[in-house]
This record gives sequence, structure tokens and C-alpha cells, in this order.
Amino acid sequence: MPKQIDHDTRKVLIAEATWRILLEQGVAGASVRNIAKEAGISLGSLRYFFHTQNELMNFSKELISERISQKVDNIFNGDQPPKEKIFLVLLELLPPTGEMENETRVRLIFKSNALSEKETIGRGEDGVFLAVKKVMSNLLLLNLLKKELDIANETERLYAVMEGLAFESLLRPNVLTATRIAEIIQYHLNAICKEEVK
Amino acid sequence: MPKQIDHDTRKVLIAEATWRILLEQGVAGASVRNIAKEAGISLGSLRYFFHTQNELMNFSKELISERISQKVDNIFNGDQPPKEKIFLVLLELLPPTGEMENETRVRLIFKSNALSEKETIGRGEDGVFLAVKKVMSNLLLLNLLKKELDIANETERLYAVMEGLAFESLLRPNVLTATRIAEIIQYHLNAICKEEVK
Repeated sequence: MPKQIDHDTRKVLIAEATWRILLEQGVAGASVRNIAKEAGISLGSLRYFFHTQNELMNFSKELISERISQKVDNIFNGDQPPKEKIFLVLLELLPPTGEMENETRVRLIFKSNALSEKETIGRGEDGVFLAVKKVMSNLLLLNLLKKELDIANETERLYAVMEGLAFESLLRPNVLTATRIAEIIQYHLNAICKEEVK
Repeated sequence: MPKQIDHDTRKVLIAEATWRILLEQGVAGASVRNIAKEAGISLGSLRYFFHTQNELMNFSKELISERISQKVDNIFNGDQPPKEKIFLVLLELLPPTGEMENETRVRLIFKSNALSEKETIGRGEDGVFLAVKKVMSNLLLLNLLKKELDIANETERLYAVMEGLAFESLLRPNVLTATRIAEIIQYHLNAICKEEVK
């Protein structure tokens, strides 16, 4: 394996170990010592890849956005009709209908931690926000949106719906089942589109 | 002061001390020892009012919902036209436009903690969900909603919008300013109502 790829792969393995620690022990447990142990490497090795804990946390957070963007691109590059792709992209980003429950949990742990620390964060980094923007621009491009809509407001509204549902579906899986999530997303798309989506 | 009122008042003072600790140190800092110190009472006194940490946490959480319900009732009992009251209720529940930033932060800290602990929580307890249900039933009662709407879906959608915006407005105060929040809420209400709200 070429050295650069090996280097990048190792960073990803360490980031995935960080996710597991965050899922099991929360931010409080995410010391570099615990993460090195989880990744099966020495503290010295970990420090070779990430000089500070902050650097490791940022990389682990950015990796989530990258994974989300990959998933979104895969769906948009698929063979389904355009409207169905948009529906599938939104479902993919929600835990009961998608396959990214761990990524969603870790993403929300990072967001909650920023809230506790009273940090403000740029949202250009958030994979779900980027996906929502892509969905909106595709709806525009395909001329599917109702005429009177305000795109800036619709983008904020869809992002809020997605984040609200992501959080709630993890907290209340018995209420927000996969079926309900699919209904609500379809309902929202139908409310903003000229013709039925899906 | 009658003894029962004094007893209840003291419980509220201890719960408010709990909020301050949660705001400053997060869940990790919310030991009964720290909370007793913040409330200016002995550990023994605290244990007289709350036998377990869990009991104290539940009371502190429920007090937020009570405060929200009080605020909502005050607005609904006011002199404004009905449609304006609905708009004001929703704004009151969002940090940049309302006066409950601390309550919202603590509420979201409790929710985030439930997520980390992989707890599932009943949402009948959540003041914002109760407020959203009240808003929806008032919109129905006043015959303001567009005919084709599905009330169960609209309730989920509005709650998701409110929770998404609450979280985002704290994380990105420069993007989701008071003006933007008011615009988005008004936009959502106009989208579901027959006539312009406000």
C-alpha cells in the first residue's frame, strides 16, 4: 500500500475509534488515551497522526460530513428518477429510514457539546446542511417547486425539519418510526412541490 | 409564609440552582454536592427535599415545562387578536425572539443527555411539544388552517421546525438572528394558514 494511503487510512481508523468512544462514553470519555486504546495503538502513535485532541476531534467531525456527502452523491448518481432521488437522500439522513444511525448520533453529540460549551459553529461544515442545500438546488433546477416559495426560508425550514426529526427519532423511536418519518418527509416535499414527489 | 409554600419554594430554588450548574458545567458537573453548594444549603438539607439525584433532575426538568406552559398560557390569556397570539407563542419558545434562553439551553442539555445515554423519553413531558399541540388545536378551532392539511403531520412538522430552530439559533446566532427567526416562523404559519398570520 502506498505510504500516503496508509497514512490516511490510519487517520480514518483512529477517527472511527473516536466515534465508538463518543457513542459509548460521550465527550467526557473521549481522552486521547482512551481513543488510542480503542484504536489499538500507542499514545505516541496517535500523537504522530494528531498533534492535539482538538485536531483529532475536528477530523472525526469532518469525517462524518464527508461520509454524508459520499452517501448523498451516490444516491444522486444513481438510476432512479430525479424526484425519487431527492426523497431517498432525505430519508438516508434520518436514523430510522437511513443507514447512518451511528453517524447521526455522533454528529448530534458534537452539536450538543458545542451547545454546552457555548461555542458557535459554522454550518458550512455540516453534511446535512450541505445535503439540504443540494436538495433545494435540485428541486429548483428540476422546476419542481411551487412558484411562490422563498428559497432561503425553505432551506432553513427543511434543515430545521431534518435536524428536529433526527433528534426526535432517536429519542422517541416508538413514535417516529421509519414509516412515520417517510410519511412526514413525503408530506413536506408534497407541500413545497408542484406535483407529488415519489 | 405557610409551611407548604415554603417547602415548594425551596424545591424551586434548588431546581434553579441545578439549572445554573447545568449551564455552567453540563451534566458532568451536576452532582448533588455541587448543586447544594450552588443553592447555598447543606447536602443534608438537599437530601431532605430530594431523596435521589434522579428525583432532583426530574423535578428540574419538569419545572422547565411548567415555566413554558405558564408563559404560553399568559400569552393565550392576553388581549391580542388570536392569530397574533399564536405567532407570539411560537416566538416566545425560541431563544433569539423569546425570553427563555436559559430554559431552552437547559432543556436541550437534558435532551442531549438522554441521547447520549440512549434513553428514550416520553414527549408528553416536553413543554414545547405541549405548546405546539395547543397552537395546532387553536389554529383548527379558529378555522385558520388550509383545508387539505393533515393535522398529525403538521404537528410533527411544526415541532421539528421549532426544535431544529431552537438548537440552530443557539449554535449559529449570527445566521439565525431574531429577525430571521420571526421571518421563518411567519413564513411557516403563512404556508399552513388560509390567510396571512399577523
